[in-house]
Amino acid sequence: ATVGNGFDVHRFAPGTGVWLCGVLIAHDQGLEGHSDADVALHALTDAVLGAVSAGDIGAHFPPSDPQWRGVSSDRFLAHAAALVAGLGGKVVHVDVTLICERPKVGPHRPAMRARVADILGLPMDRVSVKATTTEGLGFTGRREGIAAQATASVWLPA
Amino acid sequence: ATVGNGFDVHRFAPGTGVWLCGVLIAHDQGLEGHSDADVALHALTDAVLGAVSAGDIGAHFPPSDPQWRGVSSDRFLAHAAALVAGLGGKVVHVDVTLICERPKVGPHRPAMRARVADILGLPMDRVSVKATTTEGLGFTGRREGIAAQATASVWLPA
Amino acid sequence: ATVGNGFDVHRFAPGTGVWLCGVLIAHDQGLEGHSDADVALHALTDAVLGAVSAGDIGAHFPPSDPQWRGVSSDRFLAHAAALVAGLGGKVVHVDVTLICERPKVGPHRPAMRARVADILGLPMDRVSVKATTTEGLGFTGRREGIAAQATASVWLPA
Ligand SMILES: [Mg+2]
Ligand SMILES: [Mg+2]
Ligand SMILES: [Mg+2]
Repeated sequence: ATVGNGFDVHRFAPGTGVWLCGVLIAHDQGLEGHSDADVALHALTDAVLGAVSAGDIGAHFPPSDPQWRGVSSDRFLAHAAALVAGLGGKVVHVDVTLICERPKVGPHRPAMRARVADILGLPMDRVSVKATTTEGLGFTGRREGIAAQATASVWLPA
Repeated sequence: ATVGNGFDVHRFAPGTGVWLCGVLIAHDQGLEGHSDADVALHALTDAVLGAVSAGDIGAHFPPSDPQWRGVSSDRFLAHAAALVAGLGGKVVHVDVTLICERPKVGPHRPAMRARVADILGLPMDRVSVKATTTEGLGFTGRREGIAAQATASVWLPA
Repeated sequence: ATVGNGFDVHRFAPGTGVWLCGVLIAHDQGLEGHSDADVALHALTDAVLGAVSAGDIGAHFPPSDPQWRGVSSDRFLAHAAALVAGLGGKVVHVDVTLICERPKVGPHRPAMRARVADILGLPMDRVSVKATTTEGLGFTGRREGIAAQATASVWLPA
Protein backbone atom coordinates (compact mmCIF):
# COMPACT_ATOMS: atom_id res chain seq x y z
CA ALA A 1 0.00 0.00 0.00
CA THR A 2 1.16 3.51 -0.77
CA VAL A 3 -0.05 6.84 0.53
CA GLY A 4 -0.13 10.19 -1.22
CA ASN A 5 -0.65 13.65 0.19
CA GLY A 6 -2.31 16.65 -1.43
CA PHE A 7 -2.48 20.34 -0.58
CA ASP A 8 -4.26 23.18 -2.33
CA VAL A 9 -5.38 26.75 -1.73
CA HIS A 10 -7.89 28.97 -3.51
CA ARG A 11 -8.61 32.61 -2.86
CA PHE A 12 -12.01 34.08 -2.07
CA ALA A 13 -13.52 36.33 -4.72
CA PRO A 14 -16.92 37.91 -5.20
CA GLY A 15 -19.54 35.20 -5.66
CA THR A 16 -22.51 33.42 -4.19
CA GLY A 17 -21.11 30.00 -3.39
CA VAL A 18 -18.12 27.69 -3.28
CA TRP A 19 -17.62 24.17 -4.66
CA LEU A 20 -16.16 21.86 -2.03
CA CYS A 21 -15.89 18.09 -2.58
CA GLY A 22 -18.13 18.40 -5.62
CA VAL A 23 -20.93 20.11 -3.68
CA LEU A 24 -21.99 23.73 -4.26
CA ILE A 25 -22.33 25.50 -0.93
CA ALA A 26 -24.11 28.82 -0.77
CA HIS A 27 -21.74 31.45 0.62
CA ASP A 28 -21.34 35.20 0.49
CA GLN A 29 -18.18 34.73 -1.60
CA GLY A 30 -16.86 32.42 -4.29
CA LEU A 31 -13.44 30.93 -4.94
CA GLU A 32 -11.15 32.14 -7.68
CA GLY A 33 -9.39 29.70 -9.96
CA HIS A 34 -9.38 27.81 -13.19
CA SER A 35 -12.00 25.04 -13.28
CA ASP A 36 -14.59 25.36 -10.48
CA ALA A 37 -11.85 26.08 -7.90
CA ASP A 38 -12.89 23.07 -5.79
CA VAL A 39 -9.91 23.16 -3.46
CA ALA A 40 -10.93 19.90 -1.75
CA LEU A 41 -11.19 17.87 -4.95
CA HIS A 42 -7.89 19.36 -6.11
CA ALA A 43 -6.13 18.26 -2.90
CA LEU A 44 -7.75 14.82 -3.18
CA THR A 45 -6.72 14.51 -6.84
CA ASP A 46 -3.13 15.35 -5.94
CA ALA A 47 -3.18 12.81 -3.10
CA VAL A 48 -4.36 10.04 -5.44
CA LEU A 49 -1.81 11.04 -8.10
CA GLY A 50 0.88 11.16 -5.42
CA ALA A 51 0.11 7.67 -4.17
CA VAL A 52 0.91 6.27 -7.64
CA SER A 53 3.70 8.75 -8.46
CA ALA A 54 1.79 10.09 -11.45
CA GLY A 55 2.67 13.78 -11.27
CA ASP A 56 0.31 16.45 -10.03
CA ILE A 57 -2.95 18.09 -11.05
CA GLY A 58 -1.07 20.97 -12.69
CA ALA A 59 0.79 18.54 -14.95
CA HIS A 60 -2.38 16.74 -16.02
CA PHE A 61 -4.63 19.81 -16.23
CA PRO A 62 -2.52 22.95 -16.75
CA PRO A 63 -4.36 26.03 -15.42
CA SER A 64 -3.08 27.87 -18.50
CA ASP A 65 -5.07 25.52 -20.77
CA PRO A 66 -8.39 27.16 -21.67
CA GLN A 67 -10.17 23.81 -21.97
CA TRP A 68 -10.19 23.48 -18.15
CA ARG A 69 -11.72 26.92 -17.56
CA GLY A 70 -14.85 26.55 -15.47
CA VAL A 71 -15.03 22.76 -15.74
CA SER A 72 -16.18 20.64 -12.85
CA SER A 73 -13.25 19.28 -10.83
CA ASP A 74 -14.85 15.86 -10.47
CA ARG A 75 -13.28 14.98 -13.79
CA PHE A 76 -9.82 15.63 -12.34
CA LEU A 77 -10.42 13.20 -9.49
CA ALA A 78 -12.04 10.64 -11.80
CA HIS A 79 -8.98 10.87 -14.06
CA ALA A 80 -6.64 10.18 -11.14
CA ALA A 81 -8.75 7.19 -10.08
CA ALA A 82 -8.70 5.88 -13.65
CA LEU A 83 -4.90 6.10 -13.65
CA VAL A 84 -4.81 3.97 -10.50
CA ALA A 85 -7.18 1.43 -12.06
CA GLY A 86 -5.02 1.37 -15.20
CA LEU A 87 -2.10 0.25 -13.03
CA GLY A 88 -4.21 -2.60 -11.66
CA GLY A 89 -4.53 -0.72 -8.37
CA LYS A 90 -7.35 0.56 -6.24
CA VAL A 91 -8.00 3.61 -4.11
CA VAL A 92 -8.74 2.18 -0.67
CA HIS A 93 -9.51 5.26 1.42
CA VAL A 94 -9.31 9.03 1.17
CA ASP A 95 -9.34 11.71 3.84
CA VAL A 96 -9.56 15.44 3.26
CA THR A 97 -9.37 18.31 5.75
CA LEU A 98 -10.84 21.69 4.81
CA ILE A 99 -9.07 24.58 6.54
CA CYS A 100 -11.23 27.69 6.71
CA GLU A 101 -13.26 29.83 9.07
CA ARG A 102 -16.30 29.82 6.76
CA PRO A 103 -18.36 28.30 5.27
CA LYS A 104 -19.28 25.76 7.91
CA VAL A 105 -18.45 22.34 6.48
CA GLY A 106 -20.22 20.07 8.99
CA PRO A 107 -23.76 20.35 7.62
CA HIS A 108 -22.52 19.44 4.14
CA ARG A 109 -20.31 16.54 5.17
CA PRO A 110 -22.76 13.76 4.22
CA ALA A 111 -23.36 15.22 0.74
CA MET A 112 -19.62 15.76 0.25
CA ARG A 113 -18.74 12.21 1.28
CA ALA A 114 -21.45 10.79 -0.97
CA ARG A 115 -20.20 12.81 -3.93
CA VAL A 116 -16.55 11.83 -3.50
CA ALA A 117 -17.53 8.19 -2.92
CA ASP A 118 -19.50 8.30 -6.15
CA ILE A 119 -16.60 9.78 -8.15
CA LEU A 120 -14.16 7.21 -6.77
CA GLY A 121 -16.52 4.22 -6.79
CA LEU A 122 -15.91 3.71 -3.08
CA PRO A 123 -18.31 2.98 -0.24
CA MET A 124 -18.95 6.07 1.88
CA ASP A 125 -17.15 4.57 4.86
CA ARG A 126 -13.93 4.81 2.83
CA VAL A 127 -14.32 8.57 2.33
CA SER A 128 -13.55 10.99 5.14
CA VAL A 129 -14.24 14.73 5.08
CA LYS A 130 -13.10 16.87 8.00
CA ALA A 131 -12.78 20.58 8.71
CA THR A 132 -10.85 22.83 11.02
CA THR A 133 -10.17 26.52 11.44
CA THR A 134 -6.91 28.33 12.15
CA GLU A 135 -8.49 30.35 14.96
CA GLY A 136 -8.24 33.64 13.11
CA LEU A 137 -4.54 33.18 12.25
CA GLY A 138 -2.90 33.29 8.84
CA PHE A 139 -4.60 33.71 5.48
CA THR A 140 -7.32 31.21 6.25
CA GLY A 141 -7.93 32.96 9.57
CA ARG A 142 -8.22 36.30 7.78
CA ARG A 143 -10.76 34.64 5.46
CA GLU A 144 -8.68 35.36 2.38
CA GLY A 145 -9.05 31.83 1.08
CA ILE A 146 -9.58 28.15 1.79
CA ALA A 147 -6.86 25.51 2.12
CA ALA A 148 -7.32 21.75 1.89
CA GLN A 149 -5.05 18.86 2.67
CA ALA A 150 -5.71 15.27 1.72
CA THR A 151 -4.39 11.77 2.12
CA ALA A 152 -5.10 8.86 -0.22
CA SER A 153 -4.36 5.22 0.59
CA VAL A 154 -3.91 3.12 -2.51
CA TRP A 155 -3.42 -0.59 -3.00
CA LEU A 156 -1.05 -1.49 -5.83
CA PRO A 157 -0.17 -4.94 -7.18
CA ALA A 158 3.35 -5.95 -6.08
CA ALA B 1 -4.88 -0.27 6.10
CA THR B 2 -6.16 3.28 5.94
CA VAL B 3 -4.45 6.54 6.79
CA GLY B 4 -5.98 9.72 8.15
CA ASN B 5 -4.54 13.20 8.37
CA GLY B 6 -5.16 15.87 10.98
CA PHE B 7 -4.39 19.57 11.20
CA ASP B 8 -5.04 22.06 13.97
CA VAL B 9 -4.03 25.51 15.11
CA HIS B 10 -4.33 27.31 18.44
CA ARG B 11 -3.47 30.90 19.21
CA PHE B 12 -1.10 32.03 21.95
CA ALA B 13 -2.69 33.90 24.85
CA PRO B 14 -1.41 35.07 28.22
CA GLY B 15 -0.47 32.06 30.35
CA THR B 16 2.32 30.09 31.93
CA GLY B 17 2.36 26.92 29.87
CA VAL B 18 0.99 24.96 26.96
CA TRP B 19 -0.41 21.42 26.73
CA LEU B 20 1.17 19.49 23.88
CA CYS B 21 0.61 15.74 23.43
CA GLY B 22 -0.92 15.58 26.89
CA VAL B 23 2.13 17.10 28.58
CA LEU B 24 2.13 20.52 30.25
CA ILE B 25 5.16 22.51 29.13
CA ALA B 26 6.15 25.63 31.04
CA HIS B 27 6.13 28.59 28.64
CA ASP B 28 5.77 32.35 28.87
CA GLN B 29 2.39 32.06 27.12
CA GLY B 30 -0.59 29.71 27.01
CA LEU B 31 -2.82 28.54 24.17
CA GLU B 32 -6.37 29.79 23.73
CA GLY B 33 -9.20 27.38 23.00
CA HIS B 34 -11.98 25.25 24.34
CA SER B 35 -10.71 22.23 26.26
CA ASP B 36 -7.01 22.48 27.16
CA ALA B 37 -6.12 23.69 23.62
CA ASP B 38 -3.74 20.76 23.09
CA VAL B 39 -3.20 21.35 19.39
CA ALA B 40 -1.18 18.14 18.99
CA LEU B 41 -3.79 15.85 20.52
CA HIS B 42 -6.45 17.59 18.44
CA ALA B 43 -4.55 16.94 15.21
CA LEU B 44 -3.94 13.33 16.29
CA THR B 45 -7.61 12.86 17.16
CA ASP B 46 -8.63 14.15 13.74
CA ALA B 47 -6.11 11.85 12.05
CA VAL B 48 -7.52 8.80 13.85
CA LEU B 49 -11.12 9.85 13.10
CA GLY B 50 -10.15 10.47 9.49
CA ALA B 51 -8.62 7.01 9.07
CA VAL B 52 -12.00 5.45 9.90
CA SER B 53 -14.13 8.16 8.23
CA ALA B 54 -15.80 9.04 11.52
CA GLY B 55 -16.14 12.80 11.16
CA ASP B 56 -13.91 15.30 12.95
CA ILE B 57 -13.20 16.50 16.45
CA GLY B 58 -15.60 19.42 16.03
CA ALA B 59 -18.45 17.03 15.22
CA HIS B 60 -17.76 14.83 18.25
CA PHE B 61 -16.86 17.61 20.70
CA PRO B 62 -18.40 20.89 19.55
CA PRO B 63 -16.39 23.86 20.88
CA SER B 64 -19.73 25.58 21.54
CA ASP B 65 -20.68 22.86 24.06
CA PRO B 66 -19.80 24.07 27.60
CA GLN B 67 -19.14 20.51 28.81
CA TRP B 68 -15.83 20.49 26.90
CA ARG B 69 -14.59 23.77 28.40
CA GLY B 70 -11.21 23.24 29.98
CA VAL B 71 -11.28 19.45 29.78
CA SER B 72 -8.19 17.44 29.07
CA SER B 73 -7.88 16.58 25.37
CA ASP B 74 -6.73 13.05 26.12
CA ARG B 75 -10.38 12.08 26.29
CA PHE B 76 -10.84 13.19 22.68
CA LEU B 77 -8.05 10.95 21.48
CA ALA B 78 -9.21 8.07 23.67
CA HIS B 79 -12.71 8.46 22.20
CA ALA B 80 -11.33 8.25 18.65
CA ALA B 81 -9.31 5.14 19.54
CA ALA B 82 -12.42 3.56 21.09
CA LEU B 83 -14.31 4.19 17.85
CA VAL B 84 -11.59 2.33 15.93
CA ALA B 85 -11.73 -0.56 18.42
CA GLY B 86 -15.53 -0.64 18.10
CA LEU B 87 -15.09 -1.27 14.37
CA GLY B 88 -12.82 -4.21 15.13
CA GLY B 89 -9.83 -2.14 14.03
CA LYS B 90 -6.59 -1.00 15.58
CA VAL B 91 -4.46 2.12 15.49
CA VAL B 92 -1.09 0.88 14.23
CA HIS B 93 1.05 4.04 14.27
CA VAL B 94 0.69 7.76 14.73
CA ASP B 95 2.99 10.63 13.79
CA VAL B 96 2.55 14.26 14.75
CA THR B 97 4.58 17.31 13.74
CA LEU B 98 4.45 20.43 15.91
CA ILE B 99 5.02 23.61 13.92
CA CYS B 100 6.21 26.48 16.12
CA GLU B 101 9.25 28.56 16.97
CA ARG B 102 8.76 28.04 20.70
CA PRO B 103 8.52 26.19 23.02
CA LYS B 104 11.29 23.78 22.18
CA VAL B 105 9.66 20.37 21.74
CA GLY B 106 12.76 18.13 21.71
CA PRO B 107 13.36 17.93 25.46
CA HIS B 108 9.72 16.90 25.99
CA ARG B 109 9.55 14.33 23.21
CA PRO B 110 9.99 11.24 25.42
CA ALA B 111 7.24 12.35 27.81
CA MET B 112 4.94 13.25 24.94
CA ARG B 113 5.44 9.92 23.20
CA ALA B 114 4.86 8.04 26.44
CA ARG B 115 1.65 9.95 27.11
CA VAL B 116 0.22 9.40 23.62
CA ALA B 117 1.26 5.73 23.70
CA ASP B 118 -0.57 5.39 27.00
CA ILE B 119 -3.76 7.01 25.69
CA LEU B 120 -3.76 4.82 22.57
CA GLY B 121 -2.55 1.61 24.19
CA LEU B 122 0.38 1.45 21.80
CA PRO B 123 4.05 0.67 22.37
CA MET B 124 6.15 3.83 22.30
CA ASP B 125 7.86 2.78 19.07
CA ARG B 126 4.50 3.21 17.33
CA VAL B 127 4.20 6.86 18.40
CA SER B 128 6.22 9.56 16.67
CA VAL B 129 6.47 13.19 17.79
CA LYS B 130 8.40 15.65 15.66
CA ALA B 131 8.81 19.41 15.52
CA THR B 132 9.82 22.04 13.02
CA THR B 133 9.79 25.79 12.69
CA THR B 134 8.77 28.01 9.80
CA GLU B 135 11.99 30.05 10.02
CA GLY B 136 10.18 33.19 11.15
CA LEU B 137 7.60 33.08 8.34
CA GLY B 138 3.81 33.10 8.65
CA PHE B 139 1.75 33.08 11.82
CA THR B 140 3.81 30.36 13.44
CA GLY B 141 6.96 32.27 12.54
CA ARG B 142 5.53 35.42 14.13
CA ARG B 143 4.80 33.32 17.24
CA GLU B 144 1.09 34.02 17.07
CA GLY B 145 0.18 30.38 17.55
CA ILE B 146 1.12 26.73 17.17
CA ALA B 147 0.06 24.44 14.33
CA ALA B 148 0.15 20.65 14.33
CA GLN B 149 -0.26 18.08 11.62
CA ALA B 150 -0.72 14.38 12.18
CA THR B 151 -0.97 11.08 10.37
CA ALA B 152 -2.63 7.94 11.75
CA SER B 153 -2.22 4.47 10.24
CA VAL B 154 -5.12 2.21 11.10
CA TRP B 155 -5.75 -1.45 10.43
CA LEU B 156 -9.36 -2.31 9.68
CA PRO B 157 -10.91 -5.75 9.12
CA ALA B 158 -11.71 -6.26 5.43
CA ALA C 1 2.87 -0.59 7.26
CA THR C 2 3.32 2.76 8.89
CA VAL C 3 3.17 6.25 7.46
CA GLY C 4 5.07 9.34 8.51
CA ASN C 5 4.48 12.97 7.63
CA GLY C 6 7.02 15.75 7.23
CA PHE C 7 6.78 19.51 6.93
CA ASP C 8 9.48 22.11 6.46
CA VAL C 9 9.92 25.75 5.47
CA HIS C 10 12.92 27.75 4.34
CA ARG C 11 13.13 31.46 3.67
CA PHE C 12 14.30 33.06 0.44
CA ALA C 13 17.58 34.95 0.62
CA PRO C 14 19.86 36.51 -1.98
CA GLY C 15 21.26 33.81 -4.23
CA THR C 16 21.28 32.27 -7.66
CA GLY C 17 19.51 28.96 -7.11
CA VAL C 18 17.69 26.64 -4.73
CA TRP C 19 18.24 22.99 -3.89
CA LEU C 20 15.00 21.02 -4.10
CA CYS C 21 14.94 17.20 -3.88
CA GLY C 22 18.70 17.13 -4.30
CA VAL C 23 18.63 19.11 -7.54
CA LEU C 24 20.04 22.64 -7.91
CA ILE C 25 17.53 24.83 -9.71
CA ALA C 26 18.65 28.19 -11.09
CA HIS C 27 16.54 30.94 -9.51
CA ASP C 28 16.88 34.64 -8.80
CA GLN C 29 17.04 33.86 -5.09
CA GLY C 30 18.44 31.19 -2.81
CA LEU C 31 17.14 29.58 0.38
CA GLU C 32 18.50 30.38 3.81
CA GLY C 33 19.30 27.64 6.29
CA HIS C 34 21.87 25.34 7.73
CA SER C 35 22.95 22.63 5.29
CA ASP C 36 21.88 23.36 1.70
CA ALA C 37 18.36 24.37 2.85
CA ASP C 38 16.76 21.67 0.68
CA VAL C 39 13.27 22.04 2.12
CA ALA C 40 11.96 19.05 0.14
CA LEU C 41 14.63 16.61 1.33
CA HIS C 42 14.13 17.90 4.88
CA ALA C 43 10.39 17.21 4.75
CA LEU C 44 11.06 13.77 3.23
CA THR C 45 13.65 12.98 5.89
CA ASP C 46 11.18 13.88 8.61
CA ALA C 47 8.49 11.74 6.98
CA VAL C 48 10.80 8.70 6.91
CA LEU C 49 11.93 9.31 10.50
CA GLY C 50 8.29 9.73 11.53
CA ALA C 51 7.22 6.45 9.98
CA VAL C 52 9.65 4.61 12.26
CA SER C 53 9.23 6.93 15.27
CA ALA C 54 12.90 7.88 15.20
CA GLY C 55 12.70 11.54 16.15
CA ASP C 56 13.11 14.39 13.69
CA ILE C 57 15.78 15.92 11.52
CA GLY C 58 16.56 18.53 14.18
CA ALA C 59 17.32 15.79 16.70
CA HIS C 60 19.63 13.92 14.33
CA PHE C 61 21.27 16.95 12.72
CA PRO C 62 20.99 19.96 15.05
CA PRO C 63 21.12 23.23 13.06
CA SER C 64 23.31 24.62 15.83
CA ASP C 65 26.00 22.02 15.04
CA PRO C 66 28.62 23.58 12.72
CA GLN C 67 29.39 20.21 11.08
CA TRP C 68 26.08 20.40 9.15
CA ARG C 69 26.71 23.89 7.80
CA GLY C 70 26.41 23.87 4.04
CA VAL C 71 26.34 20.08 3.71
CA SER C 72 24.19 18.38 1.13
CA SER C 73 20.86 17.26 2.56
CA ASP C 74 20.97 13.94 0.74
CA ARG C 75 22.96 12.60 3.65
CA PHE C 76 20.06 13.39 5.99
CA LEU C 77 17.63 11.37 3.88
CA ALA C 78 20.16 8.56 3.43
CA HIS C 79 20.61 8.45 7.20
CA ALA C 80 16.85 8.12 7.74
CA ALA C 81 16.66 5.33 5.17
CA ALA C 82 19.58 3.54 6.86
CA LEU C 83 17.71 3.71 10.17
CA VAL C 84 14.72 2.02 8.54
CA ALA C 85 16.97 -0.67 7.06
CA GLY C 86 18.58 -1.16 10.48
CA LEU C 87 15.15 -2.04 11.84
CA GLY C 88 14.72 -4.65 9.12
CA GLY C 89 12.23 -2.37 7.38
CA LYS C 90 11.96 -0.78 3.97
CA VAL C 91 10.77 2.55 2.59
CA VAL C 92 8.02 1.58 0.15
CA HIS C 93 6.95 4.93 -1.30
CA VAL C 94 7.47 8.63 -0.71
CA ASP C 95 5.47 11.63 -1.84
CA VAL C 96 6.48 15.27 -1.48
CA THR C 97 4.55 18.43 -2.31
CA LEU C 98 6.46 21.67 -2.87
CA ILE C 99 4.41 24.74 -1.96
CA CYS C 100 5.67 27.88 -3.68
CA GLU C 101 4.88 30.35 -6.45
CA ARG C 102 8.37 30.06 -7.94
CA PRO C 103 10.52 28.39 -9.11
CA LYS C 104 8.43 26.22 -11.40
CA VAL C 105 8.90 22.63 -10.24
CA GLY C 106 7.37 20.72 -13.17
CA PRO C 107 10.34 20.89 -15.56
CA HIS C 108 12.62 19.52 -12.84
CA ARG C 109 10.32 16.74 -11.66
CA PRO C 110 12.07 13.89 -13.52
CA ALA C 111 15.51 14.88 -12.21
CA MET C 112 14.13 15.31 -8.69
CA ARG C 113 12.42 11.92 -8.71
CA ALA C 114 15.55 10.24 -10.05
CA ARG C 115 17.70 11.85 -7.36
CA VAL C 116 15.39 10.88 -4.49
CA ALA C 117 14.98 7.37 -5.89
CA ASP C 118 18.75 7.07 -6.00
CA ILE C 119 19.19 8.24 -2.40
CA LEU C 120 16.52 5.84 -1.15
CA GLY C 121 17.37 2.92 -3.41
CA LEU C 122 13.83 2.88 -4.77
CA PRO C 123 12.52 2.55 -8.31
CA MET C 124 11.35 5.90 -9.67
CA ASP C 125 7.72 4.80 -9.68
CA ARG C 126 7.90 4.72 -5.88
CA VAL C 127 8.92 8.39 -5.67
CA SER C 128 6.38 11.15 -6.20
CA VAL C 129 7.18 14.87 -6.49
CA LYS C 130 4.34 17.35 -6.77
CA ALA C 131 3.95 21.11 -6.55
CA THR C 132 1.25 23.64 -5.85
CA THR C 133 0.94 27.34 -5.18
CA THR C 134 -1.09 29.19 -2.57
CA GLU C 135 -2.52 31.58 -5.18
CA GLY C 136 -0.69 34.58 -3.77
CA LEU C 137 -1.84 33.97 -0.18
CA GLY C 138 0.29 33.61 2.93
CA PHE C 139 4.08 33.61 3.14
CA THR C 140 4.49 31.26 0.22
CA GLY C 141 2.12 33.43 -1.81
CA ARG C 142 4.18 36.51 -0.94
CA ARG C 143 7.26 34.59 -2.12
CA GLU C 144 8.96 34.88 1.25
CA GLY C 145 9.87 31.21 1.30
CA ILE C 146 9.12 27.65 0.20
CA ALA C 147 7.21 25.06 2.20
CA ALA C 148 7.21 21.30 1.63
CA GLN C 149 5.12 18.51 3.00
CA ALA C 150 5.87 14.85 2.63
CA THR C 151 4.48 11.40 3.30
CA ALA C 152 6.54 8.22 3.62
CA SER C 153 5.08 4.71 3.57
CA VAL C 154 7.29 2.22 5.33
CA TRP C 155 7.07 -1.52 5.71
CA LEU C 156 8.23 -2.83 9.08
CA PRO C 157 8.58 -6.44 10.26
CA ALA C 158 5.78 -7.31 12.71
MG1 LIG D 1 -6.48 24.18 -7.19
MG1 LIG E 1 -8.19 22.46 18.41
MG1 LIG F 1 14.86 22.52 7.01
